[in-house]
Amino acid sequence: MTSTAELQTTDAIVLDEQAQDLLFREARTANAFTDEPVTDEQLAAIFELVKWAPTSMNTQPLRVVVVRSAEAKQRLLPHMAEGNRAKTEAAPATALLAADIDFHDELPRVFPPFPGARDMFADDEEARVRTAELNTGLQVGYAIVGIRAAGLAAGPMTGFDADAISREFFPDGRHRVLVAINMGKPAENAWHDRLPRLDFDEVVTAI
Amino acid sequence: MTSTAELQTTDAIVLDEQAQDLLFREARTANAFTDEPVTDEQLAAIFELVKWAPTSMNTQPLRVVVVRSAEAKQRLLPHMAEGNRAKTEAAPATALLAADIDFHDELPRVFPPFPGARDMFADDEEARVRTAELNTGLQVGYAIVGIRAAGLAAGPMTGFDADAISREFFPDGRHRVLVAINMGKPAENAWHDRLPRLDFDEVVTAI
Repeated sequence: MTSTAELQTTDAIVLDEQAQDLLFREARTANAFTDEPVTDEQLAAIFELVKWAPTSMNTQPLRVVVVRSAEAKQRLLPHMAEGNRAKTEAAPATALLAADIDFHDELPRVFPPFPGARDMFADDEEARVRTAELNTGLQVGYAIVGIRAAGLAAGPMTGFDADAISREFFPDGRHRVLVAINMGKPAENAWHDRLPRLDFDEVVTAI
Repeated sequence: MTSTAELQTTDAIVLDEQAQDLLFREARTANAFTDEPVTDEQLAAIFELVKWAPTSMNTQPLRVVVVRSAEAKQRLLPHMAEGNRAKTEAAPATALLAADIDFHDELPRVFPPFPGARDMFADDEEARVRTAELNTGLQVGYAIVGIRAAGLAAGPMTGFDADAISREFFPDGRHRVLVAINMGKPAENAWHDRLPRLDFDEVVTAI
């Protein structure tokens, strides 16, 4: 039985039902994947879609290393939490999503409305870290939606040695890996039980 | 003329074209809105859609105050950066998106697979802040997509006195406002020129 409240809220969404299911309602965090590779075309398509989503001052601090080869996987696995190791080894691709602390070097090109933006950040590493990490967080959210838009399942993880992975895959020392995401076609039984969500009234207050 | 590369990447997305346009390609950060109100039903519908998107350990640290009344707007405006003040005053709703540093109190209910999760965070405020801010960042990204899914435009902002707004609207001292988002139907001429995005090769490396 559908309650009146559900009908009303569904009516307020203009995104079609199939898209709602693909991106949110039916999408689930996957813990097992088929052997089907994640292709260069899929990676590029996901990027070309989600690149349009906003970041503050168009900073776009997200940088990504996608680990697909067996050699690269072996460099990654020792730094994953034990519970994330087997599924990361088996996933066709694992994306390492990092914040570029030196994103400000691109601002003259990507944020022409404020020519002083680069210099404002140049002497304030604390502000750069804060801005880079916040906006990379937004971009991780967009990336998860984008992976699902490509018909793939995402398995985002934060259980790993972030310092070690940042050093190993971003050796310039100017990047911080925040989230790793296993990607691919979900295998059968790829899901745990869905976990409970907070209620609207616990999260949102309108005044 | 459409290049071969564009055709290939478009084929890799299974989300329908209309949804791609609504959420990403045609969606733009709005700086002006019509008078049409943002309703309780729209707020609930956006929440009920994006609540399904993942957070680490199902932490769901995002808490939101939606400012709609003239009285509440007057409490908000003095703390906005001057360049954000007029458009925030004129927007039918401004959502204040905060990280709940005490999200761990809900973990026994929302993350039953690991009964020790709450205690693990209880004595480590630094880990709570880090986890709350990262996952709130993801949830801000989901919220922007959700606002667009409701046929509304979003105008996200970080130009404000975050400490002052956190104190004013989350007086328990356990929340940090990270992003404010003006919401509503876009007015004519609501947009600045679209800003350049980084190229795929600058952001993503596959190994």
